Amino acid sequence: MAAERGLAMATCTAPVNIAVIKYWGKRDTDLILPINSSLSVTLHQDQLRTTTTAAASRDFTEDRLWLNGKEADVGHPRVQACLREVRRLARKRRGAGEDAAALSLSCKVHIASENNFPTAAGLASSAAGYACLVSALARLYGLEEELSEVARRGSGSACRSMFGGFVQWQRGERPDGSDSLALQVAPETHWPELRVLVLVVSGEKKPVGSTAGMQTSVETSPLLKHRAEVVVPERLAQMMRHIQERDFEGFGQLAMRDSNQFHATCLDTFPPIFYLTDVSRHIIALAHRYNAHHGHTKVAYTFDAGPNAVVFALADAVAEFVEVLRRSFPPAANGDEFVRGLPVGSAALPQELLAAVVTEPLPGAVRYILHTKPGPGPQLVDDPSQHLLGADGLPRSRA
Amino acid sequence: MAAERGLAMATCTAPVNIAVIKYWGKRDTDLILPINSSLSVTLHQDQLRTTTTAAASRDFTEDRLWLNGKEADVGHPRVQACLREVRRLARKRRGAGEDAAALSLSCKVHIASENNFPTAAGLASSAAGYACLVSALARLYGLEEELSEVARRGSGSACRSMFGGFVQWQRGERPDGSDSLALQVAPETHWPELRVLVLVVSGEKKPVGSTAGMQTSVETSPLLKHRAEVVVPERLAQMMRHIQERDFEGFGQLAMRDSNQFHATCLDTFPPIFYLTDVSRHIIALAHRYNAHHGHTKVAYTFDAGPNAVVFALADAVAEFVEVLRRSFPPAANGDEFVRGLPVGSAALPQELLAAVVTEPLPGAVRYILHTKPGPGPQLVDDPSQHLLGADGLPRSRA
Repeated sequence: MAAERGLAMATCTAPVNIAVIKYWGKRDTDLILPINSSLSVTLHQDQLRTTTTAAASRDFTEDRLWLNGKEADVGHPRVQACLREVRRLARKRRGAGEDAAALSLSCKVHIASENNFPTAAGLASSAAGYACLVSALARLYGLEEELSEVARRGSGSACRSMFGGFVQWQRGERPDGSDSLALQVAPETHWPELRVLVLVVSGEKKPVGSTAGMQTSVETSPLLKHRAEVVVPERLAQMMRHIQERDFEGFGQLAMRDSNQFHATCLDTFPPIFYLTDVSRHIIALAHRYNAHHGHTKVAYTFDAGPNAVVFALADAVAEFVEVLRRSFPPAANGDEFVRGLPVGSAALPQELLAAVVTEPLPGAVRYILHTKPGPGPQLVDDPSQHLLGADGLPRSRA
Repeated sequence: MAAERGLAMATCTAPVNIAVIKYWGKRDTDLILPINSSLSVTLHQDQLRTTTTAAASRDFTEDRLWLNGKEADVGHPRVQACLREVRRLARKRRGAGEDAAALSLSCKVHIASENNFPTAAGLASSAAGYACLVSALARLYGLEEELSEVARRGSGSACRSMFGGFVQWQRGERPDGSDSLALQVAPETHWPELRVLVLVVSGEKKPVGSTAGMQTSVETSPLLKHRAEVVVPERLAQMMRHIQERDFEGFGQLAMRDSNQFHATCLDTFPPIFYLTDVSRHIIALAHRYNAHHGHTKVAYTFDAGPNAVVFALADAVAEFVEVLRRSFPPAANGDEFVRGLPVGSAALPQELLAAVVTEPLPGAVRYILHTKPGPGPQLVDDPSQHLLGADGLPRSRA
């Protein structure tokens, strides 16, 4: 928290996470309590991150919010829920007599947030966004407690972005949601060989938003009910074991099965919801052919509420599989920028692999591949030059 | 049964059926016993049928089989199962002293079978084929009993093609399969207004055959198990009620939900099975927009193990919906033959319907539409000129 002339300011970054045991459906839509526990991998902020600056000043006359440079509705109920909860916790702490000199809770706040990737492209931007909002506000108010319960009020999966590495969002049992929290299963350093490829197939906004979609599923899908009650509890325990043991075969198989089952419950929803496209199905079939060729699980896909694929692999498999992707989805113009993020080595593909795996190339179907790995939770940005708000409390012009 | 110079011959036709409560998965792969009951509508043979001639003669030196004019393997285990079962029943009957003068059971048979539609295009050709095989053999051997149990041994869903109208295949409980039979729920005359549109989107062979696919599902899909044990028994009772009451709203809604759930269990299979394509999804979305525009269920889709859609509607809705299809999937060259089968009247589409429903036309995506309705079960063909085998016991050259 930087304070000058009555202006306090804090900037944080927060990560995207990708679920390997999926969250789909709330038992309480107001408190955002899920019908089942879920488990995710936090992706590294070097490649995908949200940055948020929160500022407070007696001079501000109203709460204000800017998203990617444009002013947005700060009255959005979920933004308000996060603001209200952070302020409530700050008040409680002051009530206990601590930090009496700190920022007045009656000050209005200005908030600016930016993603370094396209919003609403199925890349879990709301998870990173709310995790970052809550982290920045917490810094501003000097809160040090675990705040996944607050982030959850912004977007369910945001609570998982409050930790790095491998994170469980436990369903909880209490009606007030106080036990529906994120817990770190293992830190990002636990499995150093694990790599992640994000295959961006489309920047379009998804047809059915996940908030509306999942509630239709809760109301109409008998299979989702069974999944939440019976299948997930068992799978969650299995997935924790695979992660503890760094068992890629088990981890990858279960991640693929759980992604497929999530999309199956979307199809069992009425009217049905489709997030997978023919391109997604090509990627799925390609992954299975590739694994079958090698006789074990070298790559594992998972899809959230959009057509983009996230592929897990161990570091020593990345170069070959990226080459397989390049052959299967020959890039259009931007051949140079087809692979982004962490460096990828080159690999020559044996003829028999090509013949068995690259069966029907789809030029241009994958726009680009982002190579990343598991990463840490939200970070404080110390460098004041990185604040998104200027000394006047308004967004800095972006260079 | 026509007999001359020691040659006996019988010809039957049999119908295709389309399930509205789907069959997917066997509990006994040898006897073809399903994991759940199913329910189908038998389609009219004026539009879709198999014709089969079975002949027996002391002069034949071996059993032989011709499919669509080409000799095929009569040793196929499922063909053999049907032959064996029919002969066993005929032997039992003779044992009881009846019909001692009839055809010798030691005679070899020649069988010729033809579809009037493309094989393996997802149009349930094996159901019509085995129902027709068993019907023709039964006539040849003078059997009069109900033979759905025998047809089931050829192809599970074939047992439902042994009756007209609305047919249940009851799961049964006995390990020997003797209670896993088809039963007519209502005859084809029960719901005279019901119409069926088959939207043929592709003549390609499906990627995963249903026999292999369903067993992978049984082995790997937790959702299929739940569906078979819990969801289907309830839905079957509901569907019978909707049919008895000729309640199109209930019938259509449940048919769509059950089709979607079947495809959901395919997606929950590992590796996942996809029968729906982007075109299928366009048809699904179109049907929902059309129903939403009218404020009730005017059309209901169902998809089997392939991308073709079968759409149910009442007679007074057909002309308008066919026009909607024509606008949504503008036919390529064959505009004249785009609609086949029963006549379809013309309809003008109100501007607001067009605007609300025909949102993104896909030229050429639907090859043609076949207009048909519920029809009767297998039929004996009396006219000897219609036999597919000549007096020499070999296929007649097809004009």
